[in-house]
Amino acid sequence: MISFESDYIAGAHPAVLKRLCDTNLESLPGYGSDKYCEAAKEKIKKACNLPDAQVEFIAGGTQTNAVVISTMLKDYEGVVAATTGHVSAHEAGAIEYTGHEVLTVPGHEGKMYASELKSFIETFYGDEAHDHMVFPGMVYISHPTEYGTLYSKKELSDIASVCREYTIPLFLDGARLAYGLMSKDTDLTLEDIANITDVFYIGGTKVGALCGEAVVFTKGNRPAHFLTSVKKRGALLAKGRLLGVQFDALFTDDLYFEIGKHAIEMAEKLKGMFRDKGYEFFIESPTNQQFVLLTDEQYDRIKKQVAISFWEKPDSTHTVVRLATGWSTSDEDLKELGQYL
Amino acid sequence: MISFESDYIAGAHPAVLKRLCDTNLESLPGYGSDKYCEAAKEKIKKACNLPDAQVEFIAGGTQTNAVVISTMLKDYEGVVAATTGHVSAHEAGAIEYTGHEVLTVPGHEGKMYASELKSFIETFYGDEAHDHMVFPGMVYISHPTEYGTLYSKKELSDIASVCREYTIPLFLDGARLAYGLMSKDTDLTLEDIANITDVFYIGGTKVGALCGEAVVFTKGNRPAHFLTSVKKRGALLAKGRLLGVQFDALFTDDLYFEIGKHAIEMAEKLKGMFRDKGYEFFIESPTNQQFVLLTDEQYDRIKKQVAISFWEKPDSTHTVVRLATGWSTSDEDLKELGQYL
Amino acid sequence: MISFESDYIAGAHPAVLKRLCDTNLESLPGYGSDKYCEAAKEKIKKACNLPDAQVEFIAGGTQTNAVVISTMLKDYEGVVAATTGHVSAHEAGAIEYTGHEVLTVPGHEGKMYASELKSFIETFYGDEAHDHMVFPGMVYISHPTEYGTLYSKKELSDIASVCREYTIPLFLDGARLAYGLMSKDTDLTLEDIANITDVFYIGGTKVGALCGEAVVFTKGNRPAHFLTSVKKRGALLAKGRLLGVQFDALFTDDLYFEIGKHAIEMAEKLKGMFRDKGYEFFIESPTNQQFVLLTDEQYDRIKKQVAISFWEKPDSTHTVVRLATGWSTSDEDLKELGQYL
Amino acid sequence: MISFESDYIAGAHPAVLKRLCDTNLESLPGYGSDKYCEAAKEKIKKACNLPDAQVEFIAGGTQTNAVVISTMLKDYEGVVAATTGHVSAHEAGAIEYTGHEVLTVPGHEGKMYASELKSFIETFYGDEAHDHMVFPGMVYISHPTEYGTLYSKKELSDIASVCREYTIPLFLDGARLAYGLMSKDTDLTLEDIANITDVFYIGGTKVGALCGEAVVFTKGNRPAHFLTSVKKRGALLAKGRLLGVQFDALFTDDLYFEIGKHAIEMAEKLKGMFRDKGYEFFIESPTNQQFVLLTDEQYDRIKKQVAISFWEKPDSTHTVVRLATGWSTSDEDLKELGQYL
Repeated sequence: MISFESDYIAGAHPAVLKRLCDTNLESLPGYGSDKYCEAAKEKIKKACNLPDAQVEFIAGGTQTNAVVISTMLKDYEGVVAATTGHVSAHEAGAIEYTGHEVLTVPGHEGKMYASELKSFIETFYGDEAHDHMVFPGMVYISHPTEYGTLYSKKELSDIASVCREYTIPLFLDGARLAYGLMSKDTDLTLEDIANITDVFYIGGTKVGALCGEAVVFTKGNRPAHFLTSVKKRGALLAKGRLLGVQFDALFTDDLYFEIGKHAIEMAEKLKGMFRDKGYEFFIESPTNQQFVLLTDEQYDRIKKQVAISFWEKPDSTHTVVRLATGWSTSDEDLKELGQYL
Repeated sequence: MISFESDYIAGAHPAVLKRLCDTNLESLPGYGSDKYCEAAKEKIKKACNLPDAQVEFIAGGTQTNAVVISTMLKDYEGVVAATTGHVSAHEAGAIEYTGHEVLTVPGHEGKMYASELKSFIETFYGDEAHDHMVFPGMVYISHPTEYGTLYSKKELSDIASVCREYTIPLFLDGARLAYGLMSKDTDLTLEDIANITDVFYIGGTKVGALCGEAVVFTKGNRPAHFLTSVKKRGALLAKGRLLGVQFDALFTDDLYFEIGKHAIEMAEKLKGMFRDKGYEFFIESPTNQQFVLLTDEQYDRIKKQVAISFWEKPDSTHTVVRLATGWSTSDEDLKELGQYL
Repeated sequence: MISFESDYIAGAHPAVLKRLCDTNLESLPGYGSDKYCEAAKEKIKKACNLPDAQVEFIAGGTQTNAVVISTMLKDYEGVVAATTGHVSAHEAGAIEYTGHEVLTVPGHEGKMYASELKSFIETFYGDEAHDHMVFPGMVYISHPTEYGTLYSKKELSDIASVCREYTIPLFLDGARLAYGLMSKDTDLTLEDIANITDVFYIGGTKVGALCGEAVVFTKGNRPAHFLTSVKKRGALLAKGRLLGVQFDALFTDDLYFEIGKHAIEMAEKLKGMFRDKGYEFFIESPTNQQFVLLTDEQYDRIKKQVAISFWEKPDSTHTVVRLATGWSTSDEDLKELGQYL
Repeated sequence: MISFESDYIAGAHPAVLKRLCDTNLESLPGYGSDKYCEAAKEKIKKACNLPDAQVEFIAGGTQTNAVVISTMLKDYEGVVAATTGHVSAHEAGAIEYTGHEVLTVPGHEGKMYASELKSFIETFYGDEAHDHMVFPGMVYISHPTEYGTLYSKKELSDIASVCREYTIPLFLDGARLAYGLMSKDTDLTLEDIANITDVFYIGGTKVGALCGEAVVFTKGNRPAHFLTSVKKRGALLAKGRLLGVQFDALFTDDLYFEIGKHAIEMAEKLKGMFRDKGYEFFIESPTNQQFVLLTDEQYDRIKKQVAISFWEKPDSTHTVVRLATGWSTSDEDLKELGQYL
């Protein structure tokens, strides 16, 4: 059965896997101190055009969010996210497990508004502010969001301005960053993101790696003894090379961007196929995740032939499903999908 | 420079890597629900001769210890370990991070004694027992230990008897289990370990995998909603196949045991080489880790030619170093090492 | 300046203080094992008409919520509260500090609806349920709520039915329970609450004690080794008598209910005074907390003469304030207040 | 039955209780913002001769240790204590509950040696130091110790020098500080302690208060938003006056020191009585806790007449017991005790 279930249905991109094979026999020191981690960091800094950035690799996305948020927040602070943000809704309580609250502002197709963020933060600074509430100590956004949508450069800058006004770091979760960067509807480059945010991560798991995310601290703000904090959270791999080699491959010859570009092209075609057959979209997504509104009959029929993800039930007779493309999505997959629509 | 620095200096065993390559293009569901995880679990249960065992995969060792200990302990309990146990000394506080104390009993070349364990636990049950101390809720041992030593079947059974007497689960950390099972000086089989302990893990990272440990709950005692607890701790990989495929390979055609056997043979040869040249051993280890007592001059000389691990300074003029063998250790490596002794 | 700022502006009710003085010189064992704790527990069980209840004393409200919630939840669970619930909004992250998420359902004048609670919980049990979210493991309500409102017997029973259907304990925060029980608009008795809920607490701090809350486990469901868990959270007083003596006094000669009755009478008079002068109420509260809608001019004027609590700004020209009555509120206080309206 | 079970068997010192009664009817703001908290802080700063000290009140000792340690440690750090230190052994895991490890150095009659502390800390700074262990981020000592012993000024200064050398704060747990300050065998004044340590607490619960400890940050080092962190840990009392009024009384007319002096006099007499009758002491304690070595027959006989604390069994036929004096110990109590020896 063909699958559009997610962007992590296949193994590694062939070029990533090849690099793992090519380097497999080398003796390397552990815990991320090997030369491939080093090389990958350099390549990422170059891609960000930010020579002073500090790059660290962590195995998975939930883990990355938990590690970054909990090491950067102060004891009395929480992280602000959109109600639909991954850390608010889909992390099984991983942020709260670190002892910190997730504070929420409204989500608009996955995005937060700078104006609403500002209003929210302001309430902690007024005349009547008091110490009985969790203080907003970081702003978390995902880009693309959980609904595939993207912030414009202006929107991101506006959020960053609010953050700067209150000296709160802005953290961008880029689990699917490649798909945002290569969307036709974006004016944000990797360099922009590195400049505008305080910390962000470049997702590998959902963009051609077997596992791994690259955290980029953009302002010399990596927490002290970060390695120890990572280990304390169980997030340090003995064979750190596994992450270094993969990211080295992803940032060689623009592979990371090529993967993004390919998935976007496939998503555009997929979108066209659904549209041509008269399906409605639940949301207008410019990235690799597409959210289609199906009647329950359509849903029951299609899911027998194609692996897709249930998303939500907007009413009693419809179902929203998600289809995702990735590095392994092929024209043949799309053709077969077309037969079942 | 040749390296005996650890048993995680190389990538994956070629057969493991081959399996990753062979299955790379398959579309598989995420989070460990794929068929390779399923197959690997079945093979592990068979190798343990324990059809009702519950097997779960986790990416790394510290993480596995933290997840198993914190999901099995009750709120008011701590875990008992030898003072030299990995969880006591080398995990950067990962157990305490889960809110639980590590209680210690003396370590004897890495091992705890059943008699001392019993005395320790008894103090919580006497007339004068009270509720102001952390209750021992699990016993943690590593096998092989951090010093390469092994429990005999009788020693392990005696510890298990103490545990059973007080209804405390026994957890065996098998990060290097293969090397214990294939040692010439052991009378413990994998089946014995599955029968005697309540939960243990079969280490992959240090035995030919890129990452991954297989936790075996032997008595139907896997904590409820274990997947959610794993995710909450950031320990759930989206591409769970990465662990399933590797363990499927490790438990096909006895590869896991073959790797152990090879490393033990290499360690025996290495031991002989040091002995022949008159070096003393800090500890008599029957497994793949060897601890050699060097003068500081010897240490300074050898470490320029061979990557080895500093272990400790027993006095002001000597240094204990560790050399480890693994799947990738070759006769050529040993030959070269011999030149520098 | 007279104060209606809160129900904890004064010290202890004179009868409570007298009991502390009368027993002060007695030698008593520590940590709540004294005879006054014992006697108070018996009196509370009797007042609840629940001989098998288990009663425990904890010093403060936030602490009580954190201890009860975190010792009763399983690792993978969170607590469900109304968005306006104390644990959601006003506890400085104390629940999250225990590693658990607060899940929210809409608040309606401080209350949750059984129907909305049911819909929320149902999403965790459907076909598409999955393990990536925090499972609802307890329902938390406050009675009176943070807005002074009360559940009717039917409303409480309906919520309890939902809880029972899904085997989720219902926890009632009774920080101000006396004021709910003695309201003219309630059909719920203490006995009802003991029967309907799984655990609740009888607030002392806000009802005449210097500090202290009495937790009542109604179904034999007190967590094992509760004392150790309380101490682990820093919530165990060495001189446990401080809590036992006070609750013994509060539950002698119906003092707890008398205090509630007095405060309600004072609140009714206060309400009448505001109403007579044409003020509007932000919410119709039948208990000791009254929420008045003031123009900003009125607010600025009144707060110069009377200590009152800022609550929120519903628009740019108005302010909602809270006035609370308690055991120490007198007719003289009300008379003086009247002069400033 | 007379009791020497602990120094918290009685209620409050009469002068403390009187102050609670005298101020009971006053309307005061909550959470420690009242004038008595303010006055008590000023008096404590004066007693320490440290006008810039920052003083905060917390209800209990375990809580104080947990709050101070966890708010002052960095994420990757643990606290160093003697193996016999309260935080190592008697706090039910309260420190680990905050996610931090307690690192131990040997205890010598309850005290740590500066030389051993230095050796321990040095191991984290050498050539072979690495990031896989918990870093020592605070040194915790108790004074008097759990065995009633005291540091000399030189010993305390030496420990402080080690701390300063490595920029690690020194925290002194003064749960029984008064008894240390008024011992005949001390050369340390309150002023010395304030000067030498970085943070310490002045115990109230065991020195005449119903509850309450006063934390003194001596170097402008109170953690930011400390109140929020206190509340987050459930340690903030709504009626903060309860602590403020008591400490105001304790630091009026040298009451705190008078209580200490009285208890020491009683302890000296008690010690003489035991010595005269030929009993041996387990440890030579110069403070209010006395540790007597009894045969098991003596223990069984005496404990029927006098409440005393079991301490430990040094061998199979002896028992060590603790007797403590306090503000309420009288000559009559001693006389009666004498009859049973």
